[in-house]
Amino acid sequence: MILRDPVHGLVTFESDEVEIIPTLLATREVQRLRRIRQLGLASYAYPGADHTRFSHALGTAHVMTRYLRRLRDIDQELPYWQRVTTENARDAVAASLLHDVGHGPFSHLFEDAIPEGPSHEEWSARLVMYPDGELHRLLSSYDTSLPERVVGLIRGKHRLSYLSSAVSGTFDVDRCDYLLRDAHFTGVSYGAFDLDWLLRSLRFGHTGGDGPAPPIAIDGSKGLPAIESFIMARLFMFQQVYFHKATRAADWMMRQVLGRVRELVLDGTRVGSVPPAMVSLLRDGDTTCAEYLEIDDIALLAAMSEWRHCSDPYLSEMSTRLHERKLYKTYELHGSQRDQGPELLQIAQDIASSQGFDAERHVGLDEASDTPYDEEDSPLRVVFPSHSPRRPSQVSFILGRLSGEKLRRVRLIFPPSLRDEIEKAVASTTLASSSAAT
Amino acid sequence: MILRDPVHGLVTFESDEVEIIPTLLATREVQRLRRIRQLGLASYAYPGADHTRFSHALGTAHVMTRYLRRLRDIDQELPYWQRVTTENARDAVAASLLHDVGHGPFSHLFEDAIPEGPSHEEWSARLVMYPDGELHRLLSSYDTSLPERVVGLIRGKHRLSYLSSAVSGTFDVDRCDYLLRDAHFTGVSYGAFDLDWLLRSLRFGHTGGDGPAPPIAIDGSKGLPAIESFIMARLFMFQQVYFHKATRAADWMMRQVLGRVRELVLDGTRVGSVPPAMVSLLRDGDTTCAEYLEIDDIALLAAMSEWRHCSDPYLSEMSTRLHERKLYKTYELHGSQRDQGPELLQIAQDIASSQGFDAERHVGLDEASDTPYDEEDSPLRVVFPSHSPRRPSQVSFILGRLSGEKLRRVRLIFPPSLRDEIEKAVASTTLASSSAAT
Amino acid sequence: MILRDPVHGLVTFESDEVEIIPTLLATREVQRLRRIRQLGLASYAYPGADHTRFSHALGTAHVMTRYLRRLRDIDQELPYWQRVTTENARDAVAASLLHDVGHGPFSHLFEDAIPEGPSHEEWSARLVMYPDGELHRLLSSYDTSLPERVVGLIRGKHRLSYLSSAVSGTFDVDRCDYLLRDAHFTGVSYGAFDLDWLLRSLRFGHTGGDGPAPPIAIDGSKGLPAIESFIMARLFMFQQVYFHKATRAADWMMRQVLGRVRELVLDGTRVGSVPPAMVSLLRDGDTTCAEYLEIDDIALLAAMSEWRHCSDPYLSEMSTRLHERKLYKTYELHGSQRDQGPELLQIAQDIASSQGFDAERHVGLDEASDTPYDEEDSPLRVVFPSHSPRRPSQVSFILGRLSGEKLRRVRLIFPPSLRDEIEKAVASTTLASSSAAT
Amino acid sequence: MILRDPVHGLVTFESDEVEIIPTLLATREVQRLRRIRQLGLASYAYPGADHTRFSHALGTAHVMTRYLRRLRDIDQELPYWQRVTTENARDAVAASLLHDVGHGPFSHLFEDAIPEGPSHEEWSARLVMYPDGELHRLLSSYDTSLPERVVGLIRGKHRLSYLSSAVSGTFDVDRCDYLLRDAHFTGVSYGAFDLDWLLRSLRFGHTGGDGPAPPIAIDGSKGLPAIESFIMARLFMFQQVYFHKATRAADWMMRQVLGRVRELVLDGTRVGSVPPAMVSLLRDGDTTCAEYLEIDDIALLAAMSEWRHCSDPYLSEMSTRLHERKLYKTYELHGSQRDQGPELLQIAQDIASSQGFDAERHVGLDEASDTPYDEEDSPLRVVFPSHSPRRPSQVSFILGRLSGEKLRRVRLIFPPSLRDEIEKAVASTTLASSSAAT
Repeated sequence: MILRDPVHGLVTFESDEVEIIPTLLATREVQRLRRIRQLGLASYAYPGADHTRFSHALGTAHVMTRYLRRLRDIDQELPYWQRVTTENARDAVAASLLHDVGHGPFSHLFEDAIPEGPSHEEWSARLVMYPDGELHRLLSSYDTSLPERVVGLIRGKHRLSYLSSAVSGTFDVDRCDYLLRDAHFTGVSYGAFDLDWLLRSLRFGHTGGDGPAPPIAIDGSKGLPAIESFIMARLFMFQQVYFHKATRAADWMMRQVLGRVRELVLDGTRVGSVPPAMVSLLRDGDTTCAEYLEIDDIALLAAMSEWRHCSDPYLSEMSTRLHERKLYKTYELHGSQRDQGPELLQIAQDIASSQGFDAERHVGLDEASDTPYDEEDSPLRVVFPSHSPRRPSQVSFILGRLSGEKLRRVRLIFPPSLRDEIEKAVASTTLASSSAAT
Repeated sequence: MILRDPVHGLVTFESDEVEIIPTLLATREVQRLRRIRQLGLASYAYPGADHTRFSHALGTAHVMTRYLRRLRDIDQELPYWQRVTTENARDAVAASLLHDVGHGPFSHLFEDAIPEGPSHEEWSARLVMYPDGELHRLLSSYDTSLPERVVGLIRGKHRLSYLSSAVSGTFDVDRCDYLLRDAHFTGVSYGAFDLDWLLRSLRFGHTGGDGPAPPIAIDGSKGLPAIESFIMARLFMFQQVYFHKATRAADWMMRQVLGRVRELVLDGTRVGSVPPAMVSLLRDGDTTCAEYLEIDDIALLAAMSEWRHCSDPYLSEMSTRLHERKLYKTYELHGSQRDQGPELLQIAQDIASSQGFDAERHVGLDEASDTPYDEEDSPLRVVFPSHSPRRPSQVSFILGRLSGEKLRRVRLIFPPSLRDEIEKAVASTTLASSSAAT
Repeated sequence: MILRDPVHGLVTFESDEVEIIPTLLATREVQRLRRIRQLGLASYAYPGADHTRFSHALGTAHVMTRYLRRLRDIDQELPYWQRVTTENARDAVAASLLHDVGHGPFSHLFEDAIPEGPSHEEWSARLVMYPDGELHRLLSSYDTSLPERVVGLIRGKHRLSYLSSAVSGTFDVDRCDYLLRDAHFTGVSYGAFDLDWLLRSLRFGHTGGDGPAPPIAIDGSKGLPAIESFIMARLFMFQQVYFHKATRAADWMMRQVLGRVRELVLDGTRVGSVPPAMVSLLRDGDTTCAEYLEIDDIALLAAMSEWRHCSDPYLSEMSTRLHERKLYKTYELHGSQRDQGPELLQIAQDIASSQGFDAERHVGLDEASDTPYDEEDSPLRVVFPSHSPRRPSQVSFILGRLSGEKLRRVRLIFPPSLRDEIEKAVASTTLASSSAAT
Repeated sequence: MILRDPVHGLVTFESDEVEIIPTLLATREVQRLRRIRQLGLASYAYPGADHTRFSHALGTAHVMTRYLRRLRDIDQELPYWQRVTTENARDAVAASLLHDVGHGPFSHLFEDAIPEGPSHEEWSARLVMYPDGELHRLLSSYDTSLPERVVGLIRGKHRLSYLSSAVSGTFDVDRCDYLLRDAHFTGVSYGAFDLDWLLRSLRFGHTGGDGPAPPIAIDGSKGLPAIESFIMARLFMFQQVYFHKATRAADWMMRQVLGRVRELVLDGTRVGSVPPAMVSLLRDGDTTCAEYLEIDDIALLAAMSEWRHCSDPYLSEMSTRLHERKLYKTYELHGSQRDQGPELLQIAQDIASSQGFDAERHVGLDEASDTPYDEEDSPLRVVFPSHSPRRPSQVSFILGRLSGEKLRRVRLIFPPSLRDEIEKAVASTTLASSSAAT
């Protein structure tokens, strides 16, 4: 199989150990990912960001083949029982392709909005193990224990720790692909980093021995800029894309829409067009694989399109607004304002109430946060010819300054018509409190 | 308004004459383009090609602002009544944004499949003139005759011919954007050309005078490689993307699906989920703007998802196949085979019949053709300091060899299970006829 | 004038106020920059880095034209006497083109090696004022006080502070060009940043008033990532390119070569092929413009080629080594080692002496340091609609962590044959001292 | 060895069979290529084009390692004695690195100007065989017959024809590198093509058998666009860069300079600074390897810098003009003018004479020509699963139209002061002759 990917260029899956990829791609479970956008509603902020989970899954499998090639170049230094076998390699590319096969509509959005259901990771595992699925049948046809091994890898468990951390870790193949992909499709150049150099910088944390296989590590003499620019790319993408105000506002509105549907469904009110899987999830906290496979962006967008005409005014209004991208506005809290979140939310809601809005439904406080580089639990080390391995923050100018730092965005979200009044009220409150503090 | 576009980088609409763009973008007619993919089903062949008509419309308006900037740099040589006014400029950017606002689901696919309805160009004009639409109200609020002027430009009519050919011509702003955009999202690098240099090479065909404004032209001393690479990019994109076998097979299947729905609807059979606009188009050959605005990729994909479960076996099978990308195969006819199309189709259909297929529905002959560079009707000329203007083919090494040449792809399309038998039969027929010819 | 630049693409100088550029480019003073490489000996580490000061000067002038275009887009908010005039604009592009016209062979290397001579900034000013030069005659032909104004700008003095900081400041047009250019020619992708967005983010620090013109500033709501990635690009380029071990070793060797020539010239020993300007600089601490214009990379490399065959064994050896890229090795000091520099140098020199080397000549300690982002003296501020301007470090996640931090590389430099012994000795010394410390 | 190349990104030479590359790179013969620019005087037209033969040699060796990797992926289909051995691979990368080691100053320019000397191919062979050279000693240390095998490959002779055509053929690794490299450094984007896809499209012309190894071929189902865009890239680079008027004018002037030096040397006139190798070549038609290794761009530019001050007025003037880029002008002959070259040259020379110029020395006729795609002698075929191999022109839309077509540029070259008069005279002559023809 040979195809063109706008991110990685020429992508091929041809050797024996990756010939499983084309067959996996043809299953309906994986094809469903064509109908789930990678970045949810981010194309409301970045008009190019309509790329799907399918292209990301493909890219992730491709990066895994390159990762494995690098491992093979260096694993001669390990005892043979710690090296990657053909079977391991096949397991790893399959797991990398399937790691997110369980995502629901709009990726993270759906599971955030319906927290009573299983997580997407749990769905990934279920779909791999689903006996009536094309996917499970295919995997089993290779080897009856292959589905279980894939689930193990997806959950980060493997005899070879350098392999499980390739599927999920500080710089796993998933992140390698999505940073480059999201950068390519949004046009945010800051997300690019040097994948070639990063892969080339991989080393093992030690040279084996009798114990367990070594963790993955970075070459200290050549690899630092690669890992630094990778971390910086993550930071920039969070700042610019994942935490973008329009995306966050649209996400919040979609959660409100789904939340209202939940209320109506649980109240027993008839709401048309709700996909069966969603009804089951809301009522029973779970659904079947067969039902789950039927929900995707198309199903949810088609439902939302119907809800524009439903009898519930709030659901109708919010659905129409999302359909036509008539988004709510945001006000970002800076500095000490961020500690006053609940108080400022109350002020904004009071304003909304005084204007006749149902304040709880129309005004929200949105907090997004991430630690771009969290070294605490990471086994990643930097290795040198004549020193013991060190933590990246010990040897990197920039990582030493970033490690553990938390990036945080707190925003009020509200209808456009309230913008001026809310901004004014928040500004004066903040001013008052900061002069009081002085 | 300032935003990031993955193709053009930083895109801004800020001067007085383009401030109309952000307001146009906010209308529901233009927002609808977010739900129509630029390349229909091409993402079945190129996994990145999920970009929408919305991003293309935006990019086209951006290229128009650059085109206008270039015109302003050189129109001092024209008498003032032949220059671009602020009003002209606003009309031109609006027309470039709206030129394809009338596209139906999957762009060209829908109108090809339902030929009884108006063309997408006609729908663009109707939507601009639709009195109850947000779009028309907005345009009229600027100037009551603006909607009509926009329609005129979309149809290629304008007092200043260099302006109408910018909206629609050999190298209009539409093509400039879509070649670069389709290249970026498919990853087919051959589609890239040098837009900066191309715009910089624009000249007027003559320096005005009392008659009509001059046509647009290309600078003979600097501009040839720019126009050559533009034409070559078109050629490559047709060869690689627009005529790709998987896309053509998927398109053919979608036309079969819609064709079957047409039969069922006209027969009076109840088919669920058919969007009202489609029913009207099939029954009456037309529909209202209000209904038309409700159909988009989402509506059609959601309907097709339903049709998987309908009682008509053909519709159900083909819908399922498209949903899961289980595509029909193709066999491309080369050389003299292409003159034997009907005969070879018959052979393939006979094979299908003998295997129990309804041959007419399951085997087709698909012809795609385009003339990458057709100079015949093009007013485009190349100008020199001391010569009269010449046709590009007269001065370009490569265009002289390409002009008027027709690119053509003819393929049989059939179910995968018939592949071997059809390929064998076609090959032996061809061989027989070529030895007979000897 | 229109030309292709590999960094900026299409570059044009056509309006009245930049028509001075093509004439300046044609002078022999500026043409001389074709014979001076931008990065000295860096192509010993990065084989593509042979780009010249000429292409950088051109690129800098181009960035200035874009900078000015941005200023014009926003200076309507200033009182008219604080805006950029046509004359100001011409002065600024001329100054940006000429800011480094005084560089000697291998850029910074020559002036570092012969510190008794004037700095390259001083030579830039002298060449602009040199009455017999083509450059001065040309500038004066536009306006007799133009040369002086250009010198003023080069020295950072101008009535409009936002203009002088464009020529020389935290992110002046010089840096904008060289970061992108050095990245393009070395292939170190980390040096790229988003110039479009950076220029678009420019604002004024205040809106004028009766006092002096405002300083330049950055838009707080859009511009932070642009300035952050600019600073990060600088950091990465210092780490990867400017402080690269092979470049630093070659630079050190070249300084040793020139240092030896100085000794020989001052001793009155006859050394062939020393360019007259160099003799004058060494003997008198100065030279004439006419002589200075005759030295460039070609002159120095040709001289060094001759010195391979001279009678002084040290000069001959080091010249041969540089000619054939047989470089000395380096050992980088990390952590506490960096405080032991002199001590470790002594150890290395002792080893060299014991092996028969003239230790002072063959073993050196090289320290490179830079503060990638020094906010202390920078007038650059970030502006917001409703706040007073703030320092970048106050509002930027990453700059807050970088500001004032010093990047430092300390290395021993020595002949390849001593590598093992020196590495071993340094390692054991360090170990001893660190255990002693415990 | 691992390094960054601006064209290919990460470049490594690490496996056993390429470990010869780092040692070859360290020889003085290869290091000398750092002092020879790849495109001669082209940086007079494209300010970025200062890249050297050294970086090209490195890039060529890198492309060869990728070429070999592809061969290994597909040579299982060949009988084992037709496959690439480790020794073959080492020979091939060595030959690709060394194929142009014999180039003189300014690449092709020097040998064109001094035709009595051996060609650069001959010098490449001599330097490889030069017993006192570092290069020969190194090669022999691997295997005493290695130098001869390398020379064989450079001359296109090898038992495995697919290997010799990789060193020199329609699309050899040399062309693959220089097209991309020249595009990167000039900024002419048209020179880029899809190297990944091209390499991936390589096939063998047949599957072995008892006879000689098969020629290299292109995959018919996937590879056409890759080879088409490669040929188009060549065409564009010739049009835009290699035949650029300023480069051609500078080349002509340099040939005049060297021609004048030849006259003076042969006349016995003393001319200072002529490198010994050049004197030998002029007097004896040959020189020694030792002398030849001493000439490079530096030596020639330093000599030309001296000639500015010599007593021969013509040599002095032309050297000064080249030093300061005060180039002669060109007038390109179009259409039927090109058949009147000698006549028009005479007219231009008469004008020059009447203005006091030594016409023969100051006015020239320059013809540049190339056949971008010459299929005649090329063994390259396109292969299909079920057809016999065909010529590219038989299956490619664009190559069928280009094959054998000759690109030609004919220009008069003359002093700037004669421009108007010559242009007028040529135009009127042409007009007269074309009306006479009617």
